Amino acid sequence: MVNIAILGYGTVGSGVVEVLDINGDSINKRCGKEINIKYILDLKEFPGTPIENKIVHDYNIIVNDPEIQVVVEVMGGVEPAYSFVKEAILKGKSVCTSNKELVAKHGAELLALSKEKKVNFLFEASVGGGIPIIRPLNQSLTADEIEEITGILNGTTNYILTKMSEEGVDFESALKEAQEKGYAERNPEADIEGYDACRKIAILSSLAFGMQVDFEDIYTEGISQITDIDFKYAKELDARIKLLGTSRKEGEGVCAMVAPMMINANHPLYSVNDVFNGIFVRGNVIGDVMFYGSGAGKLPTASAVVADVVDATKHLGTNIMTIWSSKKLDLISIKESSHRFFVRIGRDNEETKAEVSKIFGQFQVVKPKDVMGEFAFITEPMTEAEYSEKAAALKDIVSMIRVRF
Amino acid sequence: MVNIAILGYGTVGSGVVEVLDINGDSINKRCGKEINIKYILDLKEFPGTPIENKIVHDYNIIVNDPEIQVVVEVMGGVEPAYSFVKEAILKGKSVCTSNKELVAKHGAELLALSKEKKVNFLFEASVGGGIPIIRPLNQSLTADEIEEITGILNGTTNYILTKMSEEGVDFESALKEAQEKGYAERNPEADIEGYDACRKIAILSSLAFGMQVDFEDIYTEGISQITDIDFKYAKELDARIKLLGTSRKEGEGVCAMVAPMMINANHPLYSVNDVFNGIFVRGNVIGDVMFYGSGAGKLPTASAVVADVVDATKHLGTNIMTIWSSKKLDLISIKESSHRFFVRIGRDNEETKAEVSKIFGQFQVVKPKDVMGEFAFITEPMTEAEYSEKAAALKDIVSMIRVRF
Repeated sequence: MVNIAILGYGTVGSGVVEVLDINGDSINKRCGKEINIKYILDLKEFPGTPIENKIVHDYNIIVNDPEIQVVVEVMGGVEPAYSFVKEAILKGKSVCTSNKELVAKHGAELLALSKEKKVNFLFEASVGGGIPIIRPLNQSLTADEIEEITGILNGTTNYILTKMSEEGVDFESALKEAQEKGYAERNPEADIEGYDACRKIAILSSLAFGMQVDFEDIYTEGISQITDIDFKYAKELDARIKLLGTSRKEGEGVCAMVAPMMINANHPLYSVNDVFNGIFVRGNVIGDVMFYGSGAGKLPTASAVVADVVDATKHLGTNIMTIWSSKKLDLISIKESSHRFFVRIGRDNEETKAEVSKIFGQFQVVKPKDVMGEFAFITEPMTEAEYSEKAAALKDIVSMIRVRF
Repeated sequence: MVNIAILGYGTVGSGVVEVLDINGDSINKRCGKEINIKYILDLKEFPGTPIENKIVHDYNIIVNDPEIQVVVEVMGGVEPAYSFVKEAILKGKSVCTSNKELVAKHGAELLALSKEKKVNFLFEASVGGGIPIIRPLNQSLTADEIEEITGILNGTTNYILTKMSEEGVDFESALKEAQEKGYAERNPEADIEGYDACRKIAILSSLAFGMQVDFEDIYTEGISQITDIDFKYAKELDARIKLLGTSRKEGEGVCAMVAPMMINANHPLYSVNDVFNGIFVRGNVIGDVMFYGSGAGKLPTASAVVADVVDATKHLGTNIMTIWSSKKLDLISIKESSHRFFVRIGRDNEETKAEVSKIFGQFQVVKPKDVMGEFAFITEPMTEAEYSEKAAALKDIVSMIRVRF
């Protein structure tokens, strides 16, 4: 028998209990031993529920109980999660977490500590909800040098952008609908401003390149400036606008950013819609692979957490090597990053077009039938610095969206 | 240092050498030790090449060398691969293979033997080329009961079907082009008749349900009967025709088959085109996940083989548990399997429609503009047995394709 403790009986925590309840038999078979939830740490009581007798309010009971071998941290936030997790590892317990803030900030340190203590720190659920991505990156793509990792990493924004694309509604209406359906929080900032995706791409980049990528260093742009008019252009271009967290080798460096980008049907993430997430990886020998699934939700996320518990249980006493050095990876500035740019101009006459042509060279006008008094064009590939310089010389730019085709 | 031997210096074997050459440094870092190719078994000599001195013609040299800890079997075919692999395992060596025939036929036995000998039998590359699917099934989806696993598992047929769909060409032209591009063999039977996909879905089903699924028991239908006219109907329905290997729980049993099926844009496999493969998995708690990538090709396949070598190297002396019992899973007959059926009728008059309506109930006519003298309809969901009975009463059925929407 392996005794585990769950820290936090919120959405994911109760999901973990549910998954162990629904699939306990086959899970125990895969572990080779029975998993027993001994404690659940929560501020609240849950009288009259089946977990009533497992609830404790004092973490010391858990961390000082030598019978507890695996701690499941699903509270979220950096503190007190970080202190709790660190203490658990120091006491020789493995930890499985869904907490992206914790992993992005302290992943390297907690992995090093786990190695030292011959336990495991596992965090499959911190990125992409149920989608297996952390373990494939660590254990399946080991023959490759990763050249790029790009994902639709936030289900809320993907739902909003899908609504806007398919129904032509504006940002506010799509957000409101997402809130009504429970896909977006009342304060949606962390999602729509890209902060959530930023932490996730920081984690993926650290694993892909084996060194610490600080989320604070990643240029992050959300979707609140995207309008229904942008989608009319996207449709005209057979493209979709997606919030991408992306990190790729450019020259000798790595450039990471979170921003809305246009992709077309040739991109594997093009058909990742609604609340689904998708993560695209390009390796130097494997080529392109993509992982797709529910990026959030109680049971999918809990499924990933429990899969980590199974792994921790199968590796008691052995550390699974994960290469994520605490040495910082110096990202190249996005100014040096190259792509094409979709640019909307809020005037539409020959003089303006001549101006654009003078600055950006030959270009093709993009103009949806039902858009008046403006037009757009897509630049040749150029660095962000070059684009900024050219754009500064051009008046009336309504919006700019990076293009990945 | 870990000494390995490669059996077979064909496409995949030379790819393995190339991958270890290109990414050796980082691969060694991930292993925590250096991987050294000590022998390559092949009938031919390769004078003047860097591997010249590693070539041996006698397997006994390899299997009797106690320094060899991992054997890479990339010869293909059941024999002599099976005898070689079994002997290696009996001698305490781990085996990594890309050989789907071997794994489909002897997977359960070789896994059991590996467990007994505390070595590993790994076969990531046997299904989906480079796509990580075997390891995710074994180690990531461990919290779930798998309800369905469905894949586009053969790149050759997917290329042909994509050509037919996008360019409106007939089967023979598309096959010819695939052969010219080297995607299809001169004798393309194993691909186009679905035999290759059949072995792969047998392996995936065995792993998903933990029991032996014999490929001989899987109903298999290829794509050679699909015509350009079928694709006109598919287009009319906003659907695509894909060769799917599929296995899913139906009632108390599991039904497996390989057949061309129509799917629409709601299916995650809809946008898996050209030579790419995709594998869709539905779990009872994780929901839907999908894995996408190059299903074949020298380097992607070699990438998966080398990832297995890394795993074997990291687990010397420990068996990684894989649940695939030799106990046979009794598949339910496809006669009991339910879906909708797309049916083309080679007549087009009111009398015929009345006949269809009498037998199949109310139905909607599907009729592309440029198709004359015939029409089609899609049935309600029914079992294959029911369909066969009804279809027998109807004359002039030109073709039937199963529908997954």
